[in-house]
Amino acid sequence: MKLFLGIDLGGTNIAAGVVDERGHILKKHSVKTNAAQPFEGLVSDIARAAYRAAELAGVKMEEISSVGLGTPSLINPETNLLVNANNLGWRNVPLPEELGRHFPIPLYIRNDADCAALGEVLAGAAREYENALMITLGTGLGGGVVMNRRIFNGCDHMGAELGHTKLVYNGVQCTCGQYGCVEAYASATALIRQARAAVSAHPESRMADLCGGDLAQMDARIPFEAARQGDRAAGMVVDQYISYLAAGLSSFVVVFRPQVILIGGGISNEGERLLDPLNEKLFQYTFGAQEIGVPPVVRAQLGNDAGIIGAALLELSEQGGGS
Amino acid sequence: MKLFLGIDLGGTNIAAGVVDERGHILKKHSVKTNAAQPFEGLVSDIARAAYRAAELAGVKMEEISSVGLGTPSLINPETNLLVNANNLGWRNVPLPEELGRHFPIPLYIRNDADCAALGEVLAGAAREYENALMITLGTGLGGGVVMNRRIFNGCDHMGAELGHTKLVYNGVQCTCGQYGCVEAYASATALIRQARAAVSAHPESRMADLCGGDLAQMDARIPFEAARQGDRAAGMVVDQYISYLAAGLSSFVVVFRPQVILIGGGISNEGERLLDPLNEKLFQYTFGAQEIGVPPVVRAQLGNDAGIIGAALLELSEQGGGS
Repeated sequence: MKLFLGIDLGGTNIAAGVVDERGHILKKHSVKTNAAQPFEGLVSDIARAAYRAAELAGVKMEEISSVGLGTPSLINPETNLLVNANNLGWRNVPLPEELGRHFPIPLYIRNDADCAALGEVLAGAAREYENALMITLGTGLGGGVVMNRRIFNGCDHMGAELGHTKLVYNGVQCTCGQYGCVEAYASATALIRQARAAVSAHPESRMADLCGGDLAQMDARIPFEAARQGDRAAGMVVDQYISYLAAGLSSFVVVFRPQVILIGGGISNEGERLLDPLNEKLFQYTFGAQEIGVPPVVRAQLGNDAGIIGAALLELSEQGGGS
Repeated sequence: MKLFLGIDLGGTNIAAGVVDERGHILKKHSVKTNAAQPFEGLVSDIARAAYRAAELAGVKMEEISSVGLGTPSLINPETNLLVNANNLGWRNVPLPEELGRHFPIPLYIRNDADCAALGEVLAGAAREYENALMITLGTGLGGGVVMNRRIFNGCDHMGAELGHTKLVYNGVQCTCGQYGCVEAYASATALIRQARAAVSAHPESRMADLCGGDLAQMDARIPFEAARQGDRAAGMVVDQYISYLAAGLSSFVVVFRPQVILIGGGISNEGERLLDPLNEKLFQYTFGAQEIGVPPVVRAQLGNDAGIIGAALLELSEQGGGS
């Protein structure tokens, strides 16, 4: 059976794993991301993590078919430069060239959200499907689209940036600098902002107790927990947040009409408290839902491994026919 | 050279044409759409228009490679029924089966906005490109996406309904029943609504004179014309309208990253008065524009012929390799 190496490059950790054709991780290895060092140093760290994972799995790099990397940015195919990764302090860096030097085997680089989506389709919650959309609710809102078991990323491999489509014309500013992006309303960060605003308006809310009276301690679990305890302000925050998310998803549905939508990231741990109303609202907000339905929204399964598995299987997906 | 038959089925006219491989229309024929009659009657009218076009071109139907039809709806590939065409009074009708009976050659049916986009890519304003997005600003806002010279319509052939993505969360109601769709803010109908509201607020506006004091006579040209004459209220309407349109397009750009965006429909006749500010605002509103640019927005060229040509060349596009 062919083996692959997958690497998920995050702002906190570099996680590498040896993965088989079925998407099973044989061994993995993770190191902290030291983004303070120069570009070349971080690239060496990435390579070292990958070699260490191979060593743990007892295979030589030459026995591995290819290495795949998921990054929090995009490679511009015209310049072969990584465009922009704020968390890593990278802008227009020659990542494919520099990282490629470390490996005697082919290298594939794609966006991390795309890799996670691919991992879930090939080996996770969407393995019964060929077409899926995965949304990761975290600091940002990462969107990955898989069609015919391949990553869809637009005409130039830099598209499908779902988090930066507009949801609220002239709305609040997003970290990207634009206004009203879906990410600015439906990421975990956005939920925290919405919960803080609710506590400011309703200081008696149970959410104030749950964050120890310190709004800086607010997290995305608190509004869900307070709502569960019957707090009215929290209930409204959660309901509004789910409405934003459903409206954002409705746009993605009318564009892609995937067979399933997967939700990943910490907020997905809320399970049915998130998913039941989300499925309902998605049906309610989507053009043509009555006539042609909407895809089910379910929880992603692989957690952080999705990115490793998807990155590892990039070769299999892209060379493997399909479409 | 192979010949094809293309039919554009509109709420007003049925237009059929014989088209060669290069997208040149040899002969065309058009009849009024009589939507009041039963489904089977209208289908017969469509077939008759097609046979008449073939007759005018001096070719027998058997000499034609295939017939393509663009409809203001979608065919559900699971049921093979046309989903919903309000203008025609059709809902879940067996169009492929019924129309196919009239022809001894293969039949292709796609959405009319998709066909128009394909026509412009294969033989019109985007013929230098392989990936384009076309937006038709009319009663609605029709969106067509072409990737690798093929129609992109999502995972199930019912996607890419760009006009019904959200632009204004909880905004004004769209004809589709949903709220805040791009179509409800950036179609010609939306511009007319916005111009009427401006005249109500500013009765002294030149727009009031240009529609003879009768708001029912407002059309999409009037705000542009009044703005050109220096009317301030009209200038604001036009500026706001172009902002809505640019914001809507920005979402499509981050998803698809086409090489070019084509604007069709009556409003595109405003030329640079529309396109110059639209290009500027699109750059301003789009995620990543500084790093990776935005595609140029240009005027479509083929007018109503785009739909005939695109429908005619469906076989060529879909069978012709690509991707």
